[in-house]
Amino acid sequence: MTSPLREARSRETAIPVHLTEPSGAREWDRRHVLDLDDFSVSEIEQVLETADAMKEVLARDVPRAPALRGTTIVTLFYEASTRTRASFELAGKVLGADVINLTASGSSVEKGESLIDTVRTLRAIGAHVLIMRHPMSGAPYLAASHGDARVVNAGDGWHAHPTQGLLDLYTLRNHIGSLAGKRVVIVGDVTHSRVARSDIWGLSKLGAEVVVCGPPTLLPAELGRDHEDGLPLVTVETDFDKAVQGADAVMTLRLQQERMTGGLLPSLREYSRLYQVNEARMEKARPGAPVLHPGPINEGVEISAAVAHGARSLIEEQVTNGVAVRMALLYLMRGLK
Amino acid sequence: MTSPLREARSRETAIPVHLTEPSGAREWDRRHVLDLDDFSVSEIEQVLETADAMKEVLARDVPRAPALRGTTIVTLFYEASTRTRASFELAGKVLGADVINLTASGSSVEKGESLIDTVRTLRAIGAHVLIMRHPMSGAPYLAASHGDARVVNAGDGWHAHPTQGLLDLYTLRNHIGSLAGKRVVIVGDVTHSRVARSDIWGLSKLGAEVVVCGPPTLLPAELGRDHEDGLPLVTVETDFDKAVQGADAVMTLRLQQERMTGGLLPSLREYSRLYQVNEARMEKARPGAPVLHPGPINEGVEISAAVAHGARSLIEEQVTNGVAVRMALLYLMRGLK
Amino acid sequence: MTSPLREARSRETAIPVHLTEPSGAREWDRRHVLDLDDFSVSEIEQVLETADAMKEVLARDVPRAPALRGTTIVTLFYEASTRTRASFELAGKVLGADVINLTASGSSVEKGESLIDTVRTLRAIGAHVLIMRHPMSGAPYLAASHGDARVVNAGDGWHAHPTQGLLDLYTLRNHIGSLAGKRVVIVGDVTHSRVARSDIWGLSKLGAEVVVCGPPTLLPAELGRDHEDGLPLVTVETDFDKAVQGADAVMTLRLQQERMTGGLLPSLREYSRLYQVNEARMEKARPGAPVLHPGPINEGVEISAAVAHGARSLIEEQVTNGVAVRMALLYLMRGLK
Repeated sequence: MTSPLREARSRETAIPVHLTEPSGAREWDRRHVLDLDDFSVSEIEQVLETADAMKEVLARDVPRAPALRGTTIVTLFYEASTRTRASFELAGKVLGADVINLTASGSSVEKGESLIDTVRTLRAIGAHVLIMRHPMSGAPYLAASHGDARVVNAGDGWHAHPTQGLLDLYTLRNHIGSLAGKRVVIVGDVTHSRVARSDIWGLSKLGAEVVVCGPPTLLPAELGRDHEDGLPLVTVETDFDKAVQGADAVMTLRLQQERMTGGLLPSLREYSRLYQVNEARMEKARPGAPVLHPGPINEGVEISAAVAHGARSLIEEQVTNGVAVRMALLYLMRGLK
Repeated sequence: MTSPLREARSRETAIPVHLTEPSGAREWDRRHVLDLDDFSVSEIEQVLETADAMKEVLARDVPRAPALRGTTIVTLFYEASTRTRASFELAGKVLGADVINLTASGSSVEKGESLIDTVRTLRAIGAHVLIMRHPMSGAPYLAASHGDARVVNAGDGWHAHPTQGLLDLYTLRNHIGSLAGKRVVIVGDVTHSRVARSDIWGLSKLGAEVVVCGPPTLLPAELGRDHEDGLPLVTVETDFDKAVQGADAVMTLRLQQERMTGGLLPSLREYSRLYQVNEARMEKARPGAPVLHPGPINEGVEISAAVAHGARSLIEEQVTNGVAVRMALLYLMRGLK
Repeated sequence: MTSPLREARSRETAIPVHLTEPSGAREWDRRHVLDLDDFSVSEIEQVLETADAMKEVLARDVPRAPALRGTTIVTLFYEASTRTRASFELAGKVLGADVINLTASGSSVEKGESLIDTVRTLRAIGAHVLIMRHPMSGAPYLAASHGDARVVNAGDGWHAHPTQGLLDLYTLRNHIGSLAGKRVVIVGDVTHSRVARSDIWGLSKLGAEVVVCGPPTLLPAELGRDHEDGLPLVTVETDFDKAVQGADAVMTLRLQQERMTGGLLPSLREYSRLYQVNEARMEKARPGAPVLHPGPINEGVEISAAVAHGARSLIEEQVTNGVAVRMALLYLMRGLK
C-alpha cells in the first residue's frame, strides 16, 4: 500500500534532472559568496538557471527537495533582519538542511568573542555553510579567510549584499529579458547602500547601462569617475526626471531614516519631491518599465503607494525569488568541502 | 529487512482514520483564526474532536504525524511568550511542518517596517500560516486582510486569544462534560484579559452560564449590560464568595503585576483577600469543581499554592491540551489556499 | 529504482551496532546530567565510548542518525551562549530530535514566571529533555526536582558545566591516553569557573593528579583543604612555572574581563605575565603536552596566540567533540521516561 506521505516523499525527492546531471563544463567551484565583483558572467548565468529549477520545486504541492540532507547551515546575524534571515532559513529547510540561527544578542558575541574565533568555533561544531550579516564592511571576508566553512554574505555594512544583487538580476531578467544594453536606473541613497553596490556589479556584468541617481550628498563622490572606488563605470545623474527618461527599469533604494539626523538631507519632503518613484515620473520611462525595491519600503517617501502596490511593482516577486536564488546558491555550493 | 526507523516512520505516518476521511459535511473552510466570536458551534465541535485525534498522536511512542510536510509556518511574536510560542512551534513540528520563528527584536520591525509590509513579505517568502502575537488589539485582523497567508491570532492586546479559549473549552469539557447549562466563573482582571474575552465567547456558544467576577475597577463597565461591547450577555458579580456558589468550574485570570502602578488596585494583599481562588472558597463550588488558569500563575496572589498544585487544578493539562488544540487547527486549515 | 535520497536515508538510519545492542550490564539509568560529582567511573566510560560511535556518525557523508525521532528537546538559556547552545541544538538535530530554543529575553521569564513553573509548563507542552543554562548555581537541580523532564545542565553559575567536563575528558584521553596518574594543570580564575569544577570532578574520578593554579585571589580558599567545599582533593600551586613542571596537559580557563572591576586582579598585564599559557612555559611540561581551553579565548591574555593556534592546541577539537559527547548523552538518556 502506498501512503500519501510516501508519495509525498518520493515526489519531494527529485530535483529537476538538468540539475542533477550537470554537464562537466558547468561545475561550480566557488566556495564563498562575498560579493558579485568577482563573479564571472557564466557563474551568474548558472545561478539564475538553477534558480529557475528551484522555482519549480517551490511550485510543487509539497515544496521540499531535500538535496542538502545532512548539511548544517548557521545563520549568524549581527544586524536585525526579517526577510533575509527568514529567506535563507527557508531556502535551507526546503532543501532539507538543518538551520541553526544565531544573533548577536544572546550569543558569545556579548562576551567579546572575536569574529574569527566565532567562525572557527561554528565550523568546529559542524557548520558547513555560514550565512552572515554584519554591520562592518568586509567582515564576511575575514570569516571566509579563517577556517573552512563556506561563507555567504547576507549584507556587510555599506559594502555588498550579493544575494540581493542576484535576486534583483533574476527578477529583472524574468520581466525585461536580456539585460544587455538595457538602461537601468538605481535611485536613492547610493552611498549607504550595499544593495546598490551589488546591483551595480551584477547589472554591469550582464551588460546593462547603469544610471545612478540621487541627491549629491547621497552619491559616492568617486562614482562614475574612472573606477576610483573599484566599482564599474556608471552614469551619474542627480536629476531623477532626466535619469528616468527611457529607462527599462528603476531600482529604488530604501531611504534610511537615520540619515536625516546626519545632516545629509534637508527634509523627507524635499527628498520625496525630487526623488520619489511615482507614476508621474515612471511615465517617462519605457512603457511598462518595472520598479524594484529591496524592502522594507518607506511608503510615500522613496516610493509612492501607487507604484509600490501597482502593476509595475516587482517587490513581492523579489522576495519570492530571493528564496529560489538562495536555494540555488546553497545547492550549487553543496559539493564543496 | 525492516529497520526500526522505517517502522517508526510508518507508524508516524498515519493520522487516525476518522480524520483522514472526513465526511463531506464536515469540511473546514475557515482561513483565519482571529477570535471565537464568529466561530459556529459546529466549528468549535470540529476543533475539539480533531484535538482528540491529535492527543492520540501525542500519546504514541513516536509522537509525530507529518501531515503538514512542506508547510511553512512562521511565528511572529511582538510580545514575550514561552508557552504559547513553544506550543505552536511544537504543534507544527509534530505535524511535520517547518517552523520559522521571528520576534520583534531582531527583525525588520526594528527598522520601522509596517505590519502589513511584514505580513506581505512573509507570505511572499513562502509562509503558509502566520501565528501572530501583538500588543495591539486587532493587529491580526490587519494581517489577515492583507496578503493571503492564513493567520492565527496568538493573542492581540486585551482583545482575544482564541486558541487559549479553545483549549480551555477542550480541557473543561473533558472534565465536566457538556457545558450546556453549567455555571462557569471567570475571576480576576477581566478588563485587561484577552483570555477572558475569548473564554466568554467560547463558553457562551457552548451554552454555559458565564459568571464574571472581579473588583469593579477590573471589570469592563459595559459587561452584562446588553451587549454594548459586543460580548455575549454574562452575569456580573463583584463578590467572589457569591459568584463561586454552586460553580461547576472556576477560571482564574493572571493578575498583571503592572496593574498596581496604574492605581487600579489598592494592594495585592487586598486583592488576594477578596478574590484569591483558594480551597476555602472552592468548598462553596460543586464538589470536585475544577480550576483553570492560563498561566503563568502568581502563586499566592490570584490562586493559592494548594489549589494550583492540588487535585482541582487543570493547569498543566491545559498546557498539554494546548498543543493538541493547536495541532487540530493547523491540521484543519491545511487544505486552504 | 533506488534514489540517492533513499540511500542517504538508509545510510543515516544505522547507529553503530555496539550501541544498538548494548550489553545488559551497560544499561543507562541516569535521568539528569547536573554535575559530574555523582557520576560513576563506569558511567563516564560509557559516555566516552558512546561519543566514539557518535563521531563515526558525524564523519559520514550524511552525518545524521535519527535515533531520537519524535523526541522534543528544549534549550532554555538564561545566559548568552554561542557554542554550547548551538552544540546541543546540532547534537539533537543530528539524532533527529526536534529542538525548540527559548531564551530569557522573549520568554515568559520576562513576566516573572518562576523557574519551576516554566519547567513544569515545558514538560506539559511535551518537552522530553530540557537543556538549561542559568546564572544561579543550582537552578538545574530545582528544575530536575520538579516535573519529570530529563534535565541537562548546560552551565549553572560558578557551579558546574558537566558536558564541558565530559568533552574535556574525552578530548584529553584521545590525546594522552588513560588519565590515571597523569598530571593535569588547571590554570586561571578557578573561583568563578564552573568549567574548572566539573573538570576537577571528572579528572579526579578517572585518576588524574589535578593541579590547580592561579592568583590567590582567584582560587577558592577551601581548595586542597580537605574537601571543605565538597570538591576532591587537588594540589594547589600559585606559581604557574612550578605547576606546569612535568605536566601531561594544561587546561586554561577563560579570564572573565569583568573580574578586573571587582578588584580581584591588579591588571591584565600582571595576570598575563604570571599566568599566561605560552610556549616558553609549555616547554617545562612534558614534550607535546596538549593545551585545552573551553572558549571563547582572550588571545594574549590567558593564552598566547602561538599556543592557541599551535600544534598543542586542542581548542577546536574540544568544540567538535562537544557535539559528539552531547549526542552520546542524549542518546543514552533516550529510553528514560
